[in-house]
Amino acid sequence: MSQFFTSRLSALRPYTPGEQPKDTVYIKLNTNESPFPPSESVQRAVADEAARLQLYSDPECRDLNRTAADFFGVGTDQILMTNGSDEILNFAFMAFGDEQNPFAFPSISYGFYPVFAALNRVPAKPIPLGKDFRINVSDYKEIGANIVIANPNAPTGLYLGLDEIEFLLKSNRDHVVVIDEAYIDFGGESAISLIPKYDNLLVTRTFSKSYSLAGARLGFGIGSPSLIADLNTIKYSTNPYNVNRMTMAAGKAALLDSAYYREGCDKIMKTRERTREALLALGFTVTDSKTNFLFAAHDKIGGKELYLALKQNGILVRHFDLPEIERYNRITIGTDEQMDILLETIKSILKGI
Amino acid sequence: MSQFFTSRLSALRPYTPGEQPKDTVYIKLNTNESPFPPSESVQRAVADEAARLQLYSDPECRDLNRTAADFFGVGTDQILMTNGSDEILNFAFMAFGDEQNPFAFPSISYGFYPVFAALNRVPAKPIPLGKDFRINVSDYKEIGANIVIANPNAPTGLYLGLDEIEFLLKSNRDHVVVIDEAYIDFGGESAISLIPKYDNLLVTRTFSKSYSLAGARLGFGIGSPSLIADLNTIKYSTNPYNVNRMTMAAGKAALLDSAYYREGCDKIMKTRERTREALLALGFTVTDSKTNFLFAAHDKIGGKELYLALKQNGILVRHFDLPEIERYNRITIGTDEQMDILLETIKSILKGI
Repeated sequence: MSQFFTSRLSALRPYTPGEQPKDTVYIKLNTNESPFPPSESVQRAVADEAARLQLYSDPECRDLNRTAADFFGVGTDQILMTNGSDEILNFAFMAFGDEQNPFAFPSISYGFYPVFAALNRVPAKPIPLGKDFRINVSDYKEIGANIVIANPNAPTGLYLGLDEIEFLLKSNRDHVVVIDEAYIDFGGESAISLIPKYDNLLVTRTFSKSYSLAGARLGFGIGSPSLIADLNTIKYSTNPYNVNRMTMAAGKAALLDSAYYREGCDKIMKTRERTREALLALGFTVTDSKTNFLFAAHDKIGGKELYLALKQNGILVRHFDLPEIERYNRITIGTDEQMDILLETIKSILKGI
Repeated sequence: MSQFFTSRLSALRPYTPGEQPKDTVYIKLNTNESPFPPSESVQRAVADEAARLQLYSDPECRDLNRTAADFFGVGTDQILMTNGSDEILNFAFMAFGDEQNPFAFPSISYGFYPVFAALNRVPAKPIPLGKDFRINVSDYKEIGANIVIANPNAPTGLYLGLDEIEFLLKSNRDHVVVIDEAYIDFGGESAISLIPKYDNLLVTRTFSKSYSLAGARLGFGIGSPSLIADLNTIKYSTNPYNVNRMTMAAGKAALLDSAYYREGCDKIMKTRERTREALLALGFTVTDSKTNFLFAAHDKIGGKELYLALKQNGILVRHFDLPEIERYNRITIGTDEQMDILLETIKSILKGI
């Protein structure tokens, strides 16, 4: 830290992204990327846009917003596109959080929520998970705080039904409820259908996983026009040209090619179930994931120990050094071939102990 | 504003970007874009990257940072790449500003500085310009605040020499001095050479103008390793994957193709001088711009009036509704053909009054 760094953020502990090693070629099952490339039409749209990069991107994202509004059945004034979904989440903390309006979220969830709270000096209310890592929505009843819930949750993979989401919204009418649907396309039902009924609902999404665009950085929020207007106030006070031309073109082409992406998600879900069965058969505890990853622990080997053994064998998974989940690893679903290698490697690791 | 918007930002007035009309095809001389497309190698690099978008971008930007470090003759730990230079500027306000450490800047300058101050609740100290829009560096002596100066300044186009920049640095050793060099490639000398001597210097740059990449969103900061470490703390608490793969590839290819871009900047400077002479001959007051735009006023027609007349004739320039500069317009330098049309149009407007 330099002598110039503000004392008001001196306690800030930044988020640690998953490893992106450049030295060795790993089977990368650690950052929940899609094993499938973007569609041909996306690649063409990006290449076309490259010739126009001397011109600023449209700060209003009009073209992409219209496509997304049609796709999700909402108005163009109900969508805000951002530089990945981290940006829309940060905007929500900035717009709706303050000393009197904390943010509540599950104590085990996306590790960035407490960082956004600290960065924006918004009090955080971490709520412990219930039995078997379940989120008990009754813990959030009239909580006197904004809420952010990843649904399905990460790294547990567990999913809340829409009735449970509606309970959160109904019992917290005076605060914003953010439903972070980064993983919704792998078996969950989106809360977007609840937006007409609840003006305190903000649904956030990303193109990173189901749309194979992690490297393009595109996320968005959908909510009532007044929530989106507030978030636009933040955007235009932060980075009006936050989404570049190539990413806008990629996002639009991806939405127009949704059959390709639906097929990819279906494949991933099938591979997930097959892999889960195999891990169960090997004696693992595996949560009932509705995401593109599995969350698994084994009695015979510690979480960190398995993570290191896999890494030594050329496979990266994600281990979190948190007491409640240190026995577990989060394993991204790759191709069938990659998962076969994973399972064989685990078998031989288990044999060796 | 929704009922949920935080009261602590209720006075926030967002930045207004230049018009990006979609209805009519204008000659766009209003947002300081380059009239030249990115080089072929940049376009190829972007197209190549499109096939790998399912993978996250490298949060450390290692490849691009190495190229930029070589290019600018600094260490890789002295560079931070951002989603446009607005992001690095905002990071600087976040990292170094607080109630005890305001930000001082010229009262007429990039309109985003006061917005960043308000957003981050950092007191702003606007310092009036001197005679003929000059920045008097003596006004900033031991000012007890961080400083951000655009050099050359916008929208005036005026340039401070390195001795004046060094005066700012020497007389404010206890605060950060940000030199925003968005326009430095059009005739100025960069303050990067002063970085080894001053650990309180942060130089910010953009690929938007001289590198024809406004639509790719790439900016960066260069400074001492400790300043860059502080800014990385902010980055990893905001948006670790802030630069996407395509933009990284474009930036790297652009730096490796600098002869193409140097040629474009030289053309723009030549066109600027020719256009300036022609405007002076038509009775305009025109500042001595070292940027890719001119700042011009005419006794016979108001700034807004001329802006509207040009718009009616299919030419967009930028007018600012600020009392001190309302007589002026900021006119981006386009191609020679575009400037000829501009000059002919102005001639006929002046004839009609």
